[in-house]
Amino acid sequence: MIKAKTTRQTTVKVKAKPRSAAKPLINQLVVIGVGLIGGSFALALKQAGLVRQVVGVGRSRQNLRVALQRGVIDRAETNAARAVSTADMVFIGAPVGQMPGIFAQIADHLPAHTIITDAGSTKQDVIAAARAHLGVHFKRFVPAHPIAGTENSGAAAAFPELFQNRHLILLPQPDTQAAATRLVRAAWTACGAKITRLDAAEHDAIFGAVSHLPHLVAFALVNLLSQGQGAGRRLGFSGGGLRDTVRIAGSSPEMWRDICVANRAVLVPLLTGYTQQLERMRSALAAADGDALETMFRQAQHTRERWLVRR
Amino acid sequence: MIKAKTTRQTTVKVKAKPRSAAKPLINQLVVIGVGLIGGSFALALKQAGLVRQVVGVGRSRQNLRVALQRGVIDRAETNAARAVSTADMVFIGAPVGQMPGIFAQIADHLPAHTIITDAGSTKQDVIAAARAHLGVHFKRFVPAHPIAGTENSGAAAAFPELFQNRHLILLPQPDTQAAATRLVRAAWTACGAKITRLDAAEHDAIFGAVSHLPHLVAFALVNLLSQGQGAGRRLGFSGGGLRDTVRIAGSSPEMWRDICVANRAVLVPLLTGYTQQLERMRSALAAADGDALETMFRQAQHTRERWLVRR
Repeated sequence: MIKAKTTRQTTVKVKAKPRSAAKPLINQLVVIGVGLIGGSFALALKQAGLVRQVVGVGRSRQNLRVALQRGVIDRAETNAARAVSTADMVFIGAPVGQMPGIFAQIADHLPAHTIITDAGSTKQDVIAAARAHLGVHFKRFVPAHPIAGTENSGAAAAFPELFQNRHLILLPQPDTQAAATRLVRAAWTACGAKITRLDAAEHDAIFGAVSHLPHLVAFALVNLLSQGQGAGRRLGFSGGGLRDTVRIAGSSPEMWRDICVANRAVLVPLLTGYTQQLERMRSALAAADGDALETMFRQAQHTRERWLVRR
Repeated sequence: MIKAKTTRQTTVKVKAKPRSAAKPLINQLVVIGVGLIGGSFALALKQAGLVRQVVGVGRSRQNLRVALQRGVIDRAETNAARAVSTADMVFIGAPVGQMPGIFAQIADHLPAHTIITDAGSTKQDVIAAARAHLGVHFKRFVPAHPIAGTENSGAAAAFPELFQNRHLILLPQPDTQAAATRLVRAAWTACGAKITRLDAAEHDAIFGAVSHLPHLVAFALVNLLSQGQGAGRRLGFSGGGLRDTVRIAGSSPEMWRDICVANRAVLVPLLTGYTQQLERMRSALAAADGDALETMFRQAQHTRERWLVRR
């Protein structure tokens, strides 16, 4: 029986033994980048009894210690090449900018049966890097992207329910082995995710718009408000509106740097379109054109109600 | 004993009798504009036993019916001039664009002892309108602004706890009677609000930045994302980040039209500053300058942590 306390930053006790007497699906899972996503994936699979042992690989010894203490991983390792040499599944939860280096580092050490998957927020670049570096192992690489997260980072923020009822985008390539796709699909299903297949270019266009751009919007708003004299006093008067609008400005700067650079071909024109929307508002304001403003606000209210609330 | 169910859109049973046997502070409260703010103010004062009777004035018979059904008001009235003729306190919770007309309409019908207050989100324009129209009654007008709200509007959304531990900005003018200020302060204190005095120009500058601008940011983002083919599908993949970022895009278009037009002298330069922040990001993206992006993101994360989380 596996029990996991789910509260963030508390110790999670997870026995290594799976729930059922049956052999777990994955004997050894190696998580490279034991952050919010990688840690939550490990916890969810442990809770489902799908994995026997989780080995965590990361740059920060402090974060690996937290992961061990919380029962997110069973063993810590700093050398990715050594770690993957006994892995049945390798899950890469590192910022997308590190993925090419990680692929290059592990390629020569992967056993011939190991399934590789990732959780990168951009897909065209990650798939290209995997194809360039994994060689013969590429056919067992199943690109994926869980649409889940909080504004908190690190193993301390991980919890097994993170993916419950959240979208998981699966992007097997024409040369991906069906058995590899099946295993990754089974793992994410066990995490409670709703699985959708998308083409990588469509994925990057969609998430550039609904995820990456909103982060830029929030980061830029906080930076503007932090400028000038009296900024602290001003922010002290803010209410729930601003707090929610900029919640995601608490997200990992490194992770979002990598995502935005990787998806800049999508983001640059989106930013142009966004500043055009703001220009329209500024013109209407300068002209005190209340009707034009109301029309814009009403359209936004309607879209939000139609698409973002009723889901 | 007053009991009020606070869940939105449920019927609130509030007996007219105050909690204590003592005479309530306000015999008759007239609320002009029985929306989220005006309705919640009425409910909070009823719950505190500070008011004997609440008369609601509004343009929408449907909304007044809801207010009556939920016990937010005790009597509905469509004629503001008639309603205020017996009022001890008049609370104006209408969109700020309607305030000049309301002041003009009620000025000749106000008893000589009536205290007038408002909840307008902009203050320089409301104070100027009150001064222009209220005449001899201006000295009993106490401008105020509660920093509270949700993305829902109307009497159906009102609940008595809305103002608990929220900021209330009080802006008595040099010629405002001290007794009037005391009564309005006492009413808001009973609502659970934390009272701060600000100068009207400072108020408008602060809330232009921390409240009005974030609304424009959210409205513009939703409008951009709603454009083009496949917008619905795209929005269907959005997660909690976008949902929170654009929550306030659900706010009343009419109310926000009035606020933005009234405070356009503050908002136009803020929008300029905001688009400059976005331009900096776009330049860094176009140059694939990850370091510059990370610096901007880290600054935002730091500001958010320092000012917006630890409050």
